[in-house]
Amino acid sequence: MISVKLAKNSGFCFGVKRAIKLAEQTADYYGRATTIGPIIHNPQMVESLKNAGVIAIDDISLIQTGPVIIRSHGIPTETLSKLKMKQLEIIDATCPYVAKAHDFAILADKDNYQIFILGNPDHPEIIALKSFINSKVYIVENADDIPVEKFNRIAVICQTTQNINNLNRLAEHLLPISNELRIFNTICNATNVRQESSLELAKKCDLMIVIGGKNSSNTKMLAKLCSEHAQTKHIETADEIDESWFNNLKSIGLTAGASTPDWIIINVYNKIKVIVRDDHNRVDTVENIPGYKEEPNEY
Amino acid sequence: MISVKLAKNSGFCFGVKRAIKLAEQTADYYGRATTIGPIIHNPQMVESLKNAGVIAIDDISLIQTGPVIIRSHGIPTETLSKLKMKQLEIIDATCPYVAKAHDFAILADKDNYQIFILGNPDHPEIIALKSFINSKVYIVENADDIPVEKFNRIAVICQTTQNINNLNRLAEHLLPISNELRIFNTICNATNVRQESSLELAKKCDLMIVIGGKNSSNTKMLAKLCSEHAQTKHIETADEIDESWFNNLKSIGLTAGASTPDWIIINVYNKIKVIVRDDHNRVDTVENIPGYKEEPNEY
Repeated sequence: MISVKLAKNSGFCFGVKRAIKLAEQTADYYGRATTIGPIIHNPQMVESLKNAGVIAIDDISLIQTGPVIIRSHGIPTETLSKLKMKQLEIIDATCPYVAKAHDFAILADKDNYQIFILGNPDHPEIIALKSFINSKVYIVENADDIPVEKFNRIAVICQTTQNINNLNRLAEHLLPISNELRIFNTICNATNVRQESSLELAKKCDLMIVIGGKNSSNTKMLAKLCSEHAQTKHIETADEIDESWFNNLKSIGLTAGASTPDWIIINVYNKIKVIVRDDHNRVDTVENIPGYKEEPNEY
Repeated sequence: MISVKLAKNSGFCFGVKRAIKLAEQTADYYGRATTIGPIIHNPQMVESLKNAGVIAIDDISLIQTGPVIIRSHGIPTETLSKLKMKQLEIIDATCPYVAKAHDFAILADKDNYQIFILGNPDHPEIIALKSFINSKVYIVENADDIPVEKFNRIAVICQTTQNINNLNRLAEHLLPISNELRIFNTICNATNVRQESSLELAKKCDLMIVIGGKNSSNTKMLAKLCSEHAQTKHIETADEIDESWFNNLKSIGLTAGASTPDWIIINVYNKIKVIVRDDHNRVDTVENIPGYKEEPNEY
């Protein structure tokens, strides 16, 4: 029998659960709600929220009525100001760990550090984070992108979904060019434990299936890390699974990003169980998938 | 002909030059001076200062008359208090770069960071530095010595003669166990350039001779680093040179710690020139030794 296991820490993190709950409660109370851009990076979950009355709109000039929900990744300060001018009801679903990075950005900027952000400059979390900094900021995706100048004091802030080894490499490059290097390790704990338990599983499996939004940074990072240890497929839903993947395998590992809802994970698991002819062991909760262990709700 | 070259940056650094000048001026003015412990870590230079009236005494209870010179490595706050109670004239020859590390220790302690010092716990610089910190402090000589606990905010301060790669390794170990890692890179520039130019030379030579006090941290670090690239001998004076070292060599590199006086370097160079039968090319200043380049006086 082919073994199919789920990484110990998989799926929704605290910040995503909180954002979705806020969105559902808001839509329930007001009958509708608008989010600025997708509230989380999972197209299927965003689609499901649409049915509950939660609509994602990117361009805030198109938003006429409230309430408006701030996405889990946060929004730029200018966007918030414009929203306030519209005098619409605002519900802040920014992940508290993302908001903490904003506080560090304000502090480091006030204290005249040269700020480096480790992250993707095009990701909404980083676009929002950058807006809290008035002076010049370097956004780097990997340690080789850094400038050659010397700085007196450097502060580093990370995208919450970054990887600690990337941060280490950046620190190694910045140390020789600074007198003081102040690293705010804003990689969130949910990111750390998901990466660690996915890696642990990947090392023992022939195939890793990483489940989550193709636009989800933390899911993409899981896929990248797993691919260093096992053959890896990144899928959004069970529909993408191809039976041919499972020929001659002994062990399959599953993992899911912090924005991947349980029902998608369950569908993927059950579909694999059917393919590997073990369909009487299908499950209806993630808790019943071997390997998974729910983590305590943080914060 | 065997090539003999001196590392570009060798010998006295700014802080040592300053301390010796202060000691000489003080002895010249008062006719005598006492230093608390050796003013720098070079026994020959300390002996030479003795002839000028500068006496090193370790136990301050034995010091009856001033002026008292604070050594380049600094002294613990308690020792300074006791000295002040004796109402003796105090001349502070603490290297300004060492004193800067004291300022960072005070700042980090006040802001409740868990402080880690990268350095040798038995070295006078570190004994002095530690005295500025009221809370618990970890003194580590290498990254593997760190505790397993987690800390919210960690500050790192280094012995000025440390190596940047050791600091990198420590940072790598501390990042995963802290939310904020604030690294005061107090490795002084004189240390950096001496290490870099010694390494550069060691890579091109069959034998490296590292000249300086056997008790000198920065000299010992040079010897350690050079030994990773070439056969290395650490000597204090020309007397230690053994003719047998030079059989079948093509190139010899010399380097000297930040507390090694020019006349010792010159003696070593000239003795080697005699051994390798090139004694008409002896020198009387370090500037005339191939490879050497005087660096600008800093601060």
